[in-house]
Amino acid sequence: MLDTIERSLIDSASLAGPDIRSLVARRRKGYSLEAPFYTSPEIFKADMDLIFHRHWIYVGVEPDVPEPGDAMTVQLGEDSIVIVRDDDNAVRAFHNVCRHRGARLIHDYKTTVGNIVCRYHQWTYKLDGELVFAEHMGEGFNLGCHSLKPVHLKSLAGLLFVCLAAEPPADFDAMAERMSPYLAPHRIADTKVAHEEDIIEPGNWKLTMENNRECYHCAGNHPELTVPLYAYGFGFAPQELDEVGREEVERYSAMVESLHNQWEAAGFPARPVEHLDDMITGYRTERLPLAGAGESHTHNTEVACTRLLGDIQERRLGGLTFHTQPNSWHHFMSDHIVTFSVIPLDAERSLLRTKWLVHKDARQGIDYDVDNLKSVWNVTNAQDSELVGFCQAGARSQAYEPGPYSVHTEDMVDRFCNWYIGRMAAQLGV
Amino acid sequence: MLDTIERSLIDSASLAGPDIRSLVARRRKGYSLEAPFYTSPEIFKADMDLIFHRHWIYVGVEPDVPEPGDAMTVQLGEDSIVIVRDDDNAVRAFHNVCRHRGARLIHDYKTTVGNIVCRYHQWTYKLDGELVFAEHMGEGFNLGCHSLKPVHLKSLAGLLFVCLAAEPPADFDAMAERMSPYLAPHRIADTKVAHEEDIIEPGNWKLTMENNRECYHCAGNHPELTVPLYAYGFGFAPQELDEVGREEVERYSAMVESLHNQWEAAGFPARPVEHLDDMITGYRTERLPLAGAGESHTHNTEVACTRLLGDIQERRLGGLTFHTQPNSWHHFMSDHIVTFSVIPLDAERSLLRTKWLVHKDARQGIDYDVDNLKSVWNVTNAQDSELVGFCQAGARSQAYEPGPYSVHTEDMVDRFCNWYIGRMAAQLGV
Amino acid sequence: MLDTIERSLIDSASLAGPDIRSLVARRRKGYSLEAPFYTSPEIFKADMDLIFHRHWIYVGVEPDVPEPGDAMTVQLGEDSIVIVRDDDNAVRAFHNVCRHRGARLIHDYKTTVGNIVCRYHQWTYKLDGELVFAEHMGEGFNLGCHSLKPVHLKSLAGLLFVCLAAEPPADFDAMAERMSPYLAPHRIADTKVAHEEDIIEPGNWKLTMENNRECYHCAGNHPELTVPLYAYGFGFAPQELDEVGREEVERYSAMVESLHNQWEAAGFPARPVEHLDDMITGYRTERLPLAGAGESHTHNTEVACTRLLGDIQERRLGGLTFHTQPNSWHHFMSDHIVTFSVIPLDAERSLLRTKWLVHKDARQGIDYDVDNLKSVWNVTNAQDSELVGFCQAGARSQAYEPGPYSVHTEDMVDRFCNWYIGRMAAQLGV
Repeated sequence: MLDTIERSLIDSASLAGPDIRSLVARRRKGYSLEAPFYTSPEIFKADMDLIFHRHWIYVGVEPDVPEPGDAMTVQLGEDSIVIVRDDDNAVRAFHNVCRHRGARLIHDYKTTVGNIVCRYHQWTYKLDGELVFAEHMGEGFNLGCHSLKPVHLKSLAGLLFVCLAAEPPADFDAMAERMSPYLAPHRIADTKVAHEEDIIEPGNWKLTMENNRECYHCAGNHPELTVPLYAYGFGFAPQELDEVGREEVERYSAMVESLHNQWEAAGFPARPVEHLDDMITGYRTERLPLAGAGESHTHNTEVACTRLLGDIQERRLGGLTFHTQPNSWHHFMSDHIVTFSVIPLDAERSLLRTKWLVHKDARQGIDYDVDNLKSVWNVTNAQDSELVGFCQAGARSQAYEPGPYSVHTEDMVDRFCNWYIGRMAAQLGV
Repeated sequence: MLDTIERSLIDSASLAGPDIRSLVARRRKGYSLEAPFYTSPEIFKADMDLIFHRHWIYVGVEPDVPEPGDAMTVQLGEDSIVIVRDDDNAVRAFHNVCRHRGARLIHDYKTTVGNIVCRYHQWTYKLDGELVFAEHMGEGFNLGCHSLKPVHLKSLAGLLFVCLAAEPPADFDAMAERMSPYLAPHRIADTKVAHEEDIIEPGNWKLTMENNRECYHCAGNHPELTVPLYAYGFGFAPQELDEVGREEVERYSAMVESLHNQWEAAGFPARPVEHLDDMITGYRTERLPLAGAGESHTHNTEVACTRLLGDIQERRLGGLTFHTQPNSWHHFMSDHIVTFSVIPLDAERSLLRTKWLVHKDARQGIDYDVDNLKSVWNVTNAQDSELVGFCQAGARSQAYEPGPYSVHTEDMVDRFCNWYIGRMAAQLGV
Repeated sequence: MLDTIERSLIDSASLAGPDIRSLVARRRKGYSLEAPFYTSPEIFKADMDLIFHRHWIYVGVEPDVPEPGDAMTVQLGEDSIVIVRDDDNAVRAFHNVCRHRGARLIHDYKTTVGNIVCRYHQWTYKLDGELVFAEHMGEGFNLGCHSLKPVHLKSLAGLLFVCLAAEPPADFDAMAERMSPYLAPHRIADTKVAHEEDIIEPGNWKLTMENNRECYHCAGNHPELTVPLYAYGFGFAPQELDEVGREEVERYSAMVESLHNQWEAAGFPARPVEHLDDMITGYRTERLPLAGAGESHTHNTEVACTRLLGDIQERRLGGLTFHTQPNSWHHFMSDHIVTFSVIPLDAERSLLRTKWLVHKDARQGIDYDVDNLKSVWNVTNAQDSELVGFCQAGARSQAYEPGPYSVHTEDMVDRFCNWYIGRMAAQLGV
C-alpha cells in the first residue's frame, strides 16, 4: 500500500511536473541544486522564460558583423534573433520572423545582405527593420504597421548582449561603467574572429556554468589548461597545506599584489570586482598572473599572436577573466581574447560557443597559427563537456541529493546558484 | 515580480497545454492562425482526434489495389488501416490489428494476400474481415465475435477516402454527385500508378495545406511550376496593375471564358465550384488553361504521356484542380493525374504523398518517361517543403503573431483556416 | 458537437494522462491489458516507480564480477547501479553517484577498480562504499556522512537480484529456499559468461514478458527453437486433437512422469513449482525433456559444451526453466545456462540482455564453440523482437482492444498480467 506522500509524489510527477516554487524556496545554500533543476523539462521552460528571456544574454562580439550589411543569427530557445550592422554602422537586433506568414527570414549563421527579403513572398525590410515592399496586399494595407520586431541590444566594449524582455534589467549600465576600463585596452572593436567552434555539452546549462565557476576539477582533468594557470589562484583549504605549501601561497599572494599594482599603474585595471549574486546583471572580473612565460593561455604559455591587441606593448599582462550571469565567461590576454557563451538547448543539452579573437590586422600563418591559438581551450572544452555529462547522468538518479560545495574552491559555483535561485524567486514572487 | 497574467501563462503552459477552446473562439479572420495551432503537441492531438479521425481523409486511388488480393496500408496517426480488394472486386478498409493479441497484420505498404494471416499466432481472416481460423482457443471461443474492425471507405470516381468516425460526415455524397462529372472523363479506374513519392515536410500539416492554397509564393520560388501556369489564374491586386497589366488580365479572362465554354460543350465540366468552408466535407474545383503548349504540367508544357486518359482525344484540356479539406489536392490533365495527400506525423512534421497516374495501358519508355512525368512536381514539392520549414521555424518564435492574408491572392488560405476553425469549433462545442 | 464522454476523454488525455487506478481496477482476467499499459508514458513511469523500483529485479550473475575489484554497472530507468566484488569476496551494490556534485562514478559496463574514484574532483570510495578522500573540503566536513548509497542485493545460487526500495519484499527468501535445490547442481558460481548480447526490442517491457510466457507462437515463428522443444510441453486444446494427437499426448505425459522420477532420484529436482501470481516475488520452475538427442538447446539438440556444469555426468537432463516476475527467465541444461533479463527503456522500447554461461574451465574452440552455443537463442530473440514490435504497433491503434488469451496455451501470460495488475493495485491502494 502506498503512503500518502508517495502517492502525491507519483501524482504530481505524472500530472503537473515539479513544484518550482517550493524547490526555489527551499534551496540550501552551499549545496548543489536539487535534481529537477538539472533534469526537468518544466524547469527548463521556466529557465528559458524567466532567466534567458528576461536578462541580458551574451551572444557574440561586434567583430561578428564587421561591415554594414553583415548579419548574424542567434537562436535563444525557440527564438531566432538577427543581429545586423546598418549602413550607419549601428548594430541592431530583430526577431528573425516575417510579419506576413511568420517565415524565418535569414537562414545562415552569418551572411551579408542589402535589405532583408523574405524568401516566401518577397516582403522586404530595410536594415532598421522597416517594411518597404509587400506585393498584392491591396489598398487597406499599411506597410508602417509591419516592421520587424526589435530586440534590445547593448554593446559592452564590443561584447554584444541581447535581452528579449520588454523592459530589460537597468543595471547593465552600472556593469558597463565599471567594466569598460578593464576591457577597453584589449579593444574588441579592433579584433577579428580568428576561429570559432560550437560544441553541444550533454548536460543542463547550469551544470556547464557550475563547471566553469571552479577549478577544483582542473588538476585532475585539464593537463593542458593547468600549464598557464597557477593552482593557488583558484582556492585551497589552508589547513591542508604543509610548510612548503604555506610558503608557496605566501609567494603567490605577494606576486599577485605586486602585479596588480604594476598593471594598474600601467593603465590595466586588475583588482577583483565581484557582483556575482548581488546584482540582476551579475558579473565578476579580475586580472591574474599566468605561469611559465606568463604571456597567454597556450601550451607553451607564450603569446599565440605576435601582433598584440590594441596598443598593448607588454606581453605579460596575465589573464583578465570576466564572468557574467547567466551565460558567459571571457579571458583577455595581451595577444588574444577567448569568449564563451552558453545557450541552453533542452533540459539536458547545452550549446557552448567559443570564439578566439586576435587583432584585426594579425595575419594567419605569420602573426598567429589557428591550431596553436585554439589548442588549450578546445581540448579543455572537450574535457569539461565529458564532466558535465557525468553530472547530468548522476542528477537523473534517485540517489542524487545536493552535495556540499567546497567553501575554499567552489564559492563561485555557490554564487552562481545564489544568483540563479534569487532571480527565479524574484520572478516567481517566492 | 511576475504579474498575474504572466504567471498564469507559465502555469498553463507547463501544466495543461494551450487553451484550445479560447484559441479557436478568438481566431481573427483574414489572418494566419495563432502559433500554438502550428506548434503545440496538444493541438496536434486535437487535430488528429477531431479533424483526421472524424472527416473524410483522402488516402489513395483505386489503382493502388488493382487486383483481388491487392492490399495497401495507410498510417493515420497511430492507426494503421489496410485497404484491400476482395475477390468480388469490392475495395474494403479494416483496422490493421489482430483481434487476439493486437499484433499488426500487414507490414508492407503494398502487398498481395490470399487471406489476412496474423504472423503471431496464425489467426486467419478473409478479405471481408471474417475470422476463419484460430487454433487452441478452446470450446467457448466464438470466431464470429472476432472479425476485423471495419473502417468507412468511399470511392469518388476512383479517389479513395476513409473515415475513422463511427458516423462519417453525410455530405460526402453531395460532393461526389457534384464532382463526378468533372473527374469521370479522366477515368481514374483505368489508370495505373506510374510513380509515387513520399517526402516529410518539416512543418505542421496546416502549413503544408496553407502553402498549397496560394500561388502568391510561386513567382519567387517555383521557376519550373510557373512555366505551365498563368500567373493571373492565382490572383493579383488590381490597383497594382499598370496599363499593360490591365490588358493582359482582360485577355486572360476572355481566354478562360472562351475555354470554359468550349470544354463544357465537349463534355469536360470546367467552371469553378467552391465549398471550401461551407461544407463539412469542403472542396473546390476548376479547370484552368495552361500556358505555352497548354497541354500539361511538364517542363515543356506538352503531354508527358502520349497515351491520353480514358477516351480523351484533345491534349489541350488545361488542368482541372480539385482541392479537398482537410488534406488533399489533385491535378487532372489530358494525359496524366497528379494526386497529393497530406498525413500529419507530429506537430512539426507532415508526410506529403504524391502519385502520378497515367493510362493503365501506357508504356514506360515509349508512351511516357517517368523522369519527365514527375519532374515539375517533384522539384516543386521540394521547394514547398523548404518554405513550410521556414514558417514552422518562425511560428515557434515569441515574436510570431498572426499576419494578414492578401485578399487578392490568399483567399483560399483563409478559407482553409475558416474550415479548420469551424470544424474545431463544432467538435469542441465552442 | 462533442458529447460529454468524448470531451472528457479529450480533456483527460491532453491534460492528465490515463487514469491508472481505473485501468488497474477494471482489468478483465483472461484478456490482454488495455492499450495504455503498453503505450502510455505515464504508466511507464508508474511501472518504473511501482514495479521496477520496489521489487527484486534480476540483473546478472556472480560470474559477471568473478574477482575482487571487478565491477559491473546496470542501468534501471534513470538509476545506474554499480555491482562490485570486494576483497572479502562479498558482492555489493551501490548507486553509481558521487556524493559531492553527483557525477556518475563508473562509466563502463564492466571494469576492474582498486577504489572507486570520482573523475570530477577525485573523491575516493572504498569497495564497501566508504568515502576515504575528499580534498579542499575544509574543517567542518565529515567524510563519514558521505558514503556511497547502498542498493539491496541478493544472490540466488549465483543469480543476482537488486531492489531499489527502502524495504524490499521479504518473500525473496522463501523463493530462494524453494529454488536453491533446483539450481544448485548447475553451480552458477563455477561458470563463466561465455557470451552475452543486448538487443533493444521495439515494444513495452510487458509485451516482451508476455511473449516469453507462451509458446503458442513458436510453431509459426521459431523453426530453430522448436527443434529441441516438445510442442506438447506448452499447451494445446484437447478437443482439437485427433486420434493420433491423443496418443502422442499420452506418450509425452508418460515420458515426462518417468523422467521426473528418474531426475529427482538422481538429485535433480524436476517437478513444477508455480507461484507466478500468488507471491510478491513471483516465480515458476519445471524441468522438461528435450526432443531429438535430448541434451541441450542447440541446432542438433546435442550439448554445446562437452565440459558439463558442476559435477554433472548425465547430458540428458532436459531443460530446467526458471521464470521470475517481473523481468527474467532462465534455461539450465546439463552443459550450459542461458539467462535473460528485461530492462524497460521507455514505454515502447525494452532492453533484452542474454548471457550464455558454461563451466569456468571449459575452453572456447575445444570444449565449446560460441557460435554454436548462442545460435538457437540469438535467432529466437530476433524473431521475438519482431513479434513484440508487431504488438506494440497494434496497441497504438484506436482499434486495439484486449483480446482473449488461449486457456490452453497462454495461461502463463495471464498469470504474468495477474501478477502485474495485482502488484500495481497493491501499490496504488486500489
